[in-house]
Amino acid sequence: MTDFQRHPSSYRHWQLTTDGDVAHLRMNVDAEHPFAPGYELKLNSYDLGVDIELADAIQRLRFEHPNVKVVVVGSAQERAFCAGANIRMLAGSTHPFKVNFCKFTNETRLSLEDASQHSNLKAICAVNAACAGGGYELALACDEIHLVNDNNSAVSLPEVPLLGVLPGTGGLTRLVDKRKVRRDRADVFCTMAEGLRGKKALAWGLVDAIWQKSQFAEKVQTRAKELAATLPNKAPKGITLEPIRFERTDTGYRYRHVSVELEGEGRRATITVTGPQGKQPRTGAEYEQAGSSAWALQCWRELDDALLQLRFDHEQTGLLVLRTRGDRDALLQVEKDLFAHRSHWLCNEILLQMARTLRRWDLMARSMYALVDKDACCAGAFFEQTIGCDRVYVLDHDQVQMAIGPLSSGALPMSHGLTRLQNRFLAQPAQAQKLAAEQPVLSAPEADEQGLATYLLDPIDWDDDVRIALEERVSLSPDALTGMEASLRFGGAETCDSKIFGRLSAWQNWIFTRPNATGDEGALTRYGAPESARFDWRRT
Amino acid sequence: MTDFQRHPSSYRHWQLTTDGDVAHLRMNVDAEHPFAPGYELKLNSYDLGVDIELADAIQRLRFEHPNVKVVVVGSAQERAFCAGANIRMLAGSTHPFKVNFCKFTNETRLSLEDASQHSNLKAICAVNAACAGGGYELALACDEIHLVNDNNSAVSLPEVPLLGVLPGTGGLTRLVDKRKVRRDRADVFCTMAEGLRGKKALAWGLVDAIWQKSQFAEKVQTRAKELAATLPNKAPKGITLEPIRFERTDTGYRYRHVSVELEGEGRRATITVTGPQGKQPRTGAEYEQAGSSAWALQCWRELDDALLQLRFDHEQTGLLVLRTRGDRDALLQVEKDLFAHRSHWLCNEILLQMARTLRRWDLMARSMYALVDKDACCAGAFFEQTIGCDRVYVLDHDQVQMAIGPLSSGALPMSHGLTRLQNRFLAQPAQAQKLAAEQPVLSAPEADEQGLATYLLDPIDWDDDVRIALEERVSLSPDALTGMEASLRFGGAETCDSKIFGRLSAWQNWIFTRPNATGDEGALTRYGAPESARFDWRRT
Repeated sequence: MTDFQRHPSSYRHWQLTTDGDVAHLRMNVDAEHPFAPGYELKLNSYDLGVDIELADAIQRLRFEHPNVKVVVVGSAQERAFCAGANIRMLAGSTHPFKVNFCKFTNETRLSLEDASQHSNLKAICAVNAACAGGGYELALACDEIHLVNDNNSAVSLPEVPLLGVLPGTGGLTRLVDKRKVRRDRADVFCTMAEGLRGKKALAWGLVDAIWQKSQFAEKVQTRAKELAATLPNKAPKGITLEPIRFERTDTGYRYRHVSVELEGEGRRATITVTGPQGKQPRTGAEYEQAGSSAWALQCWRELDDALLQLRFDHEQTGLLVLRTRGDRDALLQVEKDLFAHRSHWLCNEILLQMARTLRRWDLMARSMYALVDKDACCAGAFFEQTIGCDRVYVLDHDQVQMAIGPLSSGALPMSHGLTRLQNRFLAQPAQAQKLAAEQPVLSAPEADEQGLATYLLDPIDWDDDVRIALEERVSLSPDALTGMEASLRFGGAETCDSKIFGRLSAWQNWIFTRPNATGDEGALTRYGAPESARFDWRRT
Repeated sequence: MTDFQRHPSSYRHWQLTTDGDVAHLRMNVDAEHPFAPGYELKLNSYDLGVDIELADAIQRLRFEHPNVKVVVVGSAQERAFCAGANIRMLAGSTHPFKVNFCKFTNETRLSLEDASQHSNLKAICAVNAACAGGGYELALACDEIHLVNDNNSAVSLPEVPLLGVLPGTGGLTRLVDKRKVRRDRADVFCTMAEGLRGKKALAWGLVDAIWQKSQFAEKVQTRAKELAATLPNKAPKGITLEPIRFERTDTGYRYRHVSVELEGEGRRATITVTGPQGKQPRTGAEYEQAGSSAWALQCWRELDDALLQLRFDHEQTGLLVLRTRGDRDALLQVEKDLFAHRSHWLCNEILLQMARTLRRWDLMARSMYALVDKDACCAGAFFEQTIGCDRVYVLDHDQVQMAIGPLSSGALPMSHGLTRLQNRFLAQPAQAQKLAAEQPVLSAPEADEQGLATYLLDPIDWDDDVRIALEERVSLSPDALTGMEASLRFGGAETCDSKIFGRLSAWQNWIFTRPNATGDEGALTRYGAPESARFDWRRT
């Protein structure tokens, strides 16, 4: 199974150092150690292994180094800032891997923007040399882009002209939606393999500052210090993120608070999440003392890991079945305490982690059904996860309750900026507001009446109806379901994030399947080969 | 070449009748007359020929019957309202045809919504029997959906379970974004082949009213009359839409105000649009007298026709080169008069036609370069068309000017709701506002300075630079360009319309290429065959 756990002490591809309130994250990809055999990671090009380390580094900065206010994202190699995703790796990957790789790298870059927006951790990208494709897309996810002004240092998105695919890690969307580059300039920029340098890159809004090579490090450092000085202090000392561990079972794998059981020849996975047990921290200071083993952090990091495993290692699993377990009051108490102390840096970070994991959940390209059964703990963030599912099956039984907690009012937004209640009740905004404000505990029939159940099932029917529902779902075309779910899950609003996943990724998925890119004579396949690509010229 | 001209007197598939302020548009598809041989149009299923007539009927209602305030869209067949797009036709079509067919049917349905929003022409859908797939998508484009409450009349979107593709004519988007159906109910509805009937369809918000069969016609008529009574009178009498004609030339085809020349082995088309010549109407009454031959109407209907020809009959044409010709002052005078009289029903309709044609232009899945050369008439709506292009090449010459007219402030919005100036200047909203308010006439260097030129070229360089630019563009991967342009052209906002084209269509394009739909064992291919589809279960 793919291992998503990393530690800075054993990074192969990145160097993370801190110096007071400024950290340096330098890319230094070990070309000889790709994630899978068959290609070399030249010129700081990256693959999944490199990006897993980057995601880890961002997490460490957030949790382990709250004193850091600015991270300078740079390169430890003279010749290249970053050449983007490795082309041989991409060309040799299956379609599902390509798509999941892009989704993960997108989420990693979004976590950088999330840190900037909500954690007062700003990112400056120090582009010291050539910065192409995914390299520039990483830069675009930073708050500021500084570029060496010389003949060699260019920013570029050469995917269209060189590879016949899109800059699909948010590049196109961030150009026009985040940086608001003029559309005709964006068009020119995205079709020139060589990219733009110096003054023109600055004038077109592709970078924020240019500096002579000899002054570059100093100017960037000065700017980082200056920016850090404008940001509030968080805390001198962080917590340690202990690695997430799971054990294999006969039918799946099990973490401390999360378990995954594969069923029906692997076409279905039941994910069981369990609420807090035993005494939990109540204040920021208590959370600092508890470290990463506190339920509120560990459970969601475990779920995050489990979702990634499912994406990469269980491609045929088409349906996720959610079961919630645990003590409702204990869970809600944890959320109330976190919410009350959300101005404490660590409580804030824990809430942001929950939010990111739930967004990863919303973006699973798998069908998701929640089962609210007799032992369910459908409360708070577990309630959010429940209504994040495509359908909610509720058992009509005295013991079943659904409880809305304090985090449903906006602490856990979806990618398109709405809360899950707002998204559910697009036609009745007052209903979303009422439920979020009143935070009711509802019986099964009440939950149904309030619009929270897709099906309220009699105990006599439960087993059969649920079994049939699960069987029916996994009989449908996986592609049609992916497109359908992507269209139905996010209503009524759009953000840069949701445009990346809903629009840009949809086009990229299409292009990845086209012979013009991935056929024997396609541009991605033939990159670097003596013959150039041959295209079917029909436009669609 | 495909003929997009129709007249009610020779409709094969629809019956259009008017009765005071209510019109009836009844679908009665002639199964024996498909658009292409090889399939039968049973149960009011439709193909391109059926939809061209529908588009024509909507145009006729707008221009020829301004007294009509409500159109009842129904069926003249007892057994079916409409079975949706013909499946054999879809399964047997090439990928480019499928995509262009869906785009055209989407635009037709959007014209119905546009009429509702801007022309006080409301649509009531009278669903008298089974209403499946594209049939229900047509209903979704109407203002109200009335359904017979019996055992046979159901609304359904069975594409996912039966065909392994999406309801791609806006269905998914309109369910959650327009009708705001709860996402879990939308999920259930879109996976049930049989759809929903009567009370449940009503309770879930899929229809707006249900009636007993015996009362149906009467109830719908009463409601239509009631709705019409709430809407203002427009005019007792319309104009006649004369057919649009073109002649073939050696290198392309020529209308009165628009010509298309195919070059470079058909990979490139130069579109020349020409401004008004001779005396033009100035008031609403004068426009009524002039009829459809007035430049302001005919030129844009011609362009509309030319764009459709290019889409369907010139699939390999990857680049549209825009040239504008004519007298700037005459063109701007026409626009000023139309704008001043925009409360007149016909001036309003003409402006709406210009806006729809320009949106069709924005949505061309072809690269578009505008050449603002010595003889250019880059003014008003031609200016809009120019900045609707991916790039604008401006000749640095005394004679060249660019003029912004009164329609650039909002009369011609893009699909995502912004003006083309707002969309161009996302980073400088004040600049968009200033240009729209001041309506300047700019010299070439001024236009460049104001951000309206992609390239300002010296006369010495013009020929070579333009030639190289055109050659370079058509050498790139057609698919990558389509995805790139769809991502760069529409920044900063989204509407239901733009979600249909940017998000839903992108997913559908992908699904159409997948073996699970269109492979030998795919669901679309195997529909109706004795063997059921076989799927590759990997989820992406």
